[in-house]
Amino acid sequence: MMAIAIMTSGGDCAGMNPAIKQFVDYCFNRKVQPYLIYDGLKGLIDGDIRPATYEDVAGIMHEGGTKIRSSRSKRFFEYKYREQAYKNLQKHNIDKIVILGGDGSFRALNQFHKDFGVNFVGIPATIDNDIFGTEYCLGVDTALNVIRQATDAVRDTSSSFKRACVIETMGRDCGYLALVSAIACGAEVCIIPELDYDLNIIGERLKKEIANGRKYVVCVVAEGCHDNKCTSTQQLVDWLQNDIGIETRATILGHVQRGGNPTVFDRLLASQFATFAVDRLLSGEKGGSVIVYNKSEFDFVSIEYVNSQKYKIKEELLDLARRLVN
Amino acid sequence: MMAIAIMTSGGDCAGMNPAIKQFVDYCFNRKVQPYLIYDGLKGLIDGDIRPATYEDVAGIMHEGGTKIRSSRSKRFFEYKYREQAYKNLQKHNIDKIVILGGDGSFRALNQFHKDFGVNFVGIPATIDNDIFGTEYCLGVDTALNVIRQATDAVRDTSSSFKRACVIETMGRDCGYLALVSAIACGAEVCIIPELDYDLNIIGERLKKEIANGRKYVVCVVAEGCHDNKCTSTQQLVDWLQNDIGIETRATILGHVQRGGNPTVFDRLLASQFATFAVDRLLSGEKGGSVIVYNKSEFDFVSIEYVNSQKYKIKEELLDLARRLVN
Amino acid sequence: MMAIAIMTSGGDCAGMNPAIKQFVDYCFNRKVQPYLIYDGLKGLIDGDIRPATYEDVAGIMHEGGTKIRSSRSKRFFEYKYREQAYKNLQKHNIDKIVILGGDGSFRALNQFHKDFGVNFVGIPATIDNDIFGTEYCLGVDTALNVIRQATDAVRDTSSSFKRACVIETMGRDCGYLALVSAIACGAEVCIIPELDYDLNIIGERLKKEIANGRKYVVCVVAEGCHDNKCTSTQQLVDWLQNDIGIETRATILGHVQRGGNPTVFDRLLASQFATFAVDRLLSGEKGGSVIVYNKSEFDFVSIEYVNSQKYKIKEELLDLARRLVN
Amino acid sequence: MMAIAIMTSGGDCAGMNPAIKQFVDYCFNRKVQPYLIYDGLKGLIDGDIRPATYEDVAGIMHEGGTKIRSSRSKRFFEYKYREQAYKNLQKHNIDKIVILGGDGSFRALNQFHKDFGVNFVGIPATIDNDIFGTEYCLGVDTALNVIRQATDAVRDTSSSFKRACVIETMGRDCGYLALVSAIACGAEVCIIPELDYDLNIIGERLKKEIANGRKYVVCVVAEGCHDNKCTSTQQLVDWLQNDIGIETRATILGHVQRGGNPTVFDRLLASQFATFAVDRLLSGEKGGSVIVYNKSEFDFVSIEYVNSQKYKIKEELLDLARRLVN
Repeated sequence: MMAIAIMTSGGDCAGMNPAIKQFVDYCFNRKVQPYLIYDGLKGLIDGDIRPATYEDVAGIMHEGGTKIRSSRSKRFFEYKYREQAYKNLQKHNIDKIVILGGDGSFRALNQFHKDFGVNFVGIPATIDNDIFGTEYCLGVDTALNVIRQATDAVRDTSSSFKRACVIETMGRDCGYLALVSAIACGAEVCIIPELDYDLNIIGERLKKEIANGRKYVVCVVAEGCHDNKCTSTQQLVDWLQNDIGIETRATILGHVQRGGNPTVFDRLLASQFATFAVDRLLSGEKGGSVIVYNKSEFDFVSIEYVNSQKYKIKEELLDLARRLVN
Repeated sequence: MMAIAIMTSGGDCAGMNPAIKQFVDYCFNRKVQPYLIYDGLKGLIDGDIRPATYEDVAGIMHEGGTKIRSSRSKRFFEYKYREQAYKNLQKHNIDKIVILGGDGSFRALNQFHKDFGVNFVGIPATIDNDIFGTEYCLGVDTALNVIRQATDAVRDTSSSFKRACVIETMGRDCGYLALVSAIACGAEVCIIPELDYDLNIIGERLKKEIANGRKYVVCVVAEGCHDNKCTSTQQLVDWLQNDIGIETRATILGHVQRGGNPTVFDRLLASQFATFAVDRLLSGEKGGSVIVYNKSEFDFVSIEYVNSQKYKIKEELLDLARRLVN
Repeated sequence: MMAIAIMTSGGDCAGMNPAIKQFVDYCFNRKVQPYLIYDGLKGLIDGDIRPATYEDVAGIMHEGGTKIRSSRSKRFFEYKYREQAYKNLQKHNIDKIVILGGDGSFRALNQFHKDFGVNFVGIPATIDNDIFGTEYCLGVDTALNVIRQATDAVRDTSSSFKRACVIETMGRDCGYLALVSAIACGAEVCIIPELDYDLNIIGERLKKEIANGRKYVVCVVAEGCHDNKCTSTQQLVDWLQNDIGIETRATILGHVQRGGNPTVFDRLLASQFATFAVDRLLSGEKGGSVIVYNKSEFDFVSIEYVNSQKYKIKEELLDLARRLVN
Repeated sequence: MMAIAIMTSGGDCAGMNPAIKQFVDYCFNRKVQPYLIYDGLKGLIDGDIRPATYEDVAGIMHEGGTKIRSSRSKRFFEYKYREQAYKNLQKHNIDKIVILGGDGSFRALNQFHKDFGVNFVGIPATIDNDIFGTEYCLGVDTALNVIRQATDAVRDTSSSFKRACVIETMGRDCGYLALVSAIACGAEVCIIPELDYDLNIIGERLKKEIANGRKYVVCVVAEGCHDNKCTSTQQLVDWLQNDIGIETRATILGHVQRGGNPTVFDRLLASQFATFAVDRLLSGEKGGSVIVYNKSEFDFVSIEYVNSQKYKIKEELLDLARRLVN
């Protein structure tokens, strides 16, 4: 019987478990033996590879994170460890892999393919939504809804008390989460690397609105701002308290955003990503590719294409938020 | 100052409030006076039309339903009531309307336009997702996530006790909600008008799986099945208890699906629908049109186009569910 | 090493998993070997009894239902099956059992104790909250919060459209869930076996309020009403539509109420119930007893006491709801 | 007609809105005119006092925070401002007040009573649960469940990746929230001012467990720890990363804990607190008192009693958490 393995690599996100479940179910449906590689690249090197059973994936649909766990591995940069990984796969006659992760994980598998000819499909999965070539990465919708619930709660209480709140979302180099959250939750200020802003101008606006009766201020800021020479969460809190003169408190959601019950959108996308990835690998197509989702359709692109540019947020989305930085 | 009014008509859904809020905010931004028509067509006829203020829409983003309420009205079929409605608009110099609702509401406004030249844009808003010409209607994502939470809870308890559960979703003529819920929640059976099925075949499968250790069965059924000569919820419960021999209980979510805190997807779509609808009306374009969302892009189509065909669920989505009816 | 087993019996509820987890952790803490009896009385008879490991209970805290499953068993009424069950326990040197369930389950174990001297503690666990001798049964708080979320969603949409909604909660002989939900969610009508009512009087009130501008009506009804000669859900829907003249729709939550992520209250109570039950059994106390929670304190009572009377809802709680039946 | 006013003071919390709604409804029921004092002590001084209508409180049951807003006011310490406040009340013939807040707010009203004889009842409302004389303060149950959801999400993702997470809860001087959350969510470490701990001992335990296969660590810490010479969130993160050698990230929920849809427990308590407070004031009882909830019963105590001691967490609750600090 033909064998395909699945693994999750890099930062985890909601939606990985539904993808793993669909992968296993669909493999059985197509009479292929599914394998689970535990702990990402680490497990690939150390040989933690096991045939999947129905029980392994029963009842995981509504769990955040990834049941087969993830890791980062520097060892995989060395040929000898990749060779060891290849031997592990050979023991099970596995020459096809589905990998959920980001562009770093895809590059790692690409090198692995060049070395040993193992075919693979990458499924873009990261709440940062920062992979070039796809409009959407698995896990983003769930993360956005987690942020929404926190922001709605903050708004309740901020409107009860003249007060500001700064909500820090994940997003190292990409402000997508912060941007969409700010629009969807009706924030007054949004600080992300992609949008130019001037605190003096924002300050003028807030002071005027407060004078006119505004009772509270909700700001959303991307964590990456700190490293991108934007204003950090703490700087924003200090500025609101000292310059604007409003009691302010920070909410830092951190890893909460990676967990939580996956939304329907993430589950449906996970099912389709997994189905098409398996179909691709069973079609006899050689090499490595990434499945992407654009304009409501699925397609496959090369690793080189995904790595050729930096992801950019759509202009029309940035336009919707420009009034939050003026 | 130019004036535009907004109204909600027909069945309400989550996402209407974010659309109303963005409509008001964006009108102010574009220096246009926004008006709210309360109680749908009823309020249009009876003249419950008021200029909107910032306070009217503060803090409504996270509320399900519609703050300006909705209704159905037979009177609007009569010329004299439409004339009365027109006079009400004239008092406020309103000749542009944004209407959220389904195809029936759009047809009503189209007649109104033919009679008196009032321009309008229709925003498709119905949890049934059954409007031809748009992949997506406002409110569907929230409804799906409400159903998901109920289904996940049912699964917890069904797996604790050898038991089946039938979940009835809304959807009179269209099984979209039931279909996507069944796929996303990993149901074992899905009964909708769009998918042929044979209870005998499904029964064979279930009996075999139960013999092999299956502990529970989750079925999703569209309410409309009853009127479409499919198996109804009650018939399915009886069949599971008597023919399959498993204790079974029904969950009928009813109007719960229309309410609930709108998801990020519905809020973002609402913002964009409202923004583009206002832009369209302010551009000087005459007549009536419907804003549609297809392949991640917004476009405008005619009322005639929307009414020309019955909405059909995509084949690839139906394919994902075929194993649930065999 | 001493051995104690845990089992869940009868209808499942949220809070059982946290109790099982705490039972296992606390047994290890007290240097006792914990055992899990799967599938309730069925597993006790058929010998599905296994030593518990840390892995068995990892990550089950937030799951509804019961991971060791439940069942009802008529066989246990027969001596020969009880004897068989006893022999199963003997194989593992188990002479102490913690059982989560209702009064029927406690009676079954009491007979078992009389036959073979197996000591046990019963933890009251049922969303019906209908066990005499304890103010509170495990699972009730989670069920109430599940109903609350549904009712809040229904209210959103009912207030958007002149409309009534009837919400049917679980509760065969006891209207506790319906009563507390009606008070906590601000319902207009509450029909339970414990409260006398007259539909004519309620109808008068509703008609007057509707004439004065009331836009919607929310009714909560206990499922058991049907069997108790109260008005059933369907009768209430018909009455609202025909006699009161308001469009009405039913929501039947069914088993959804047994599932869902256990609330903090249920988790904390579960921890304490399990801890004190283990302490009791290890103290050398003979016989069977039920742990009860009254006035913020835990105590033990006899099976006879629990079975001596029918549970009654506190008068002061009924008083809070009297205006909903007038 | 007799008149009673309600106000919210100090930090807001979920449950205030249900109390306000019940206050208004119950006053109408008892044929008394209810008044709303907006913005707490500030509004009392500045005369923002308005008769309540049914519309003012419609649909607020499920909102966090307080619709009549809150504030802190130093002016109220001065006699002249209290005199001004009294004159404001006289204009409406109000000589009875229900105040939701903490002990500081109760002391303020007590002085007001001594000056001018205005009778009042204080309802303990603070998520810190730190008021002496009552087991429970309004808002605590909702805050705990908000923390639970975040902690469950963090656990999902932490278990996917060898990782630790530190969750900071509110609680300046009282570790109640952190303590109960740690127990209910199965945390591995809990740092609060009330529990002695030794990081070296905790570190030994964690290292041993990690060596035995533990994949993740969840720590809950009260924000007040910083000021109480305990380990702060940042110190804990640094210690986990540097001394224990595990990647660690912080979640700071901040004001999110004050908002959110009130739980059933908080709504029911709010209804009862408000009902009994109104009854007390209408009974002709003079002076000021605080309504308290102990052992499932409501009672009234004096302000002096509430201020006589510092709130202490029950020993049996602390006992449940001792294994988390060893």
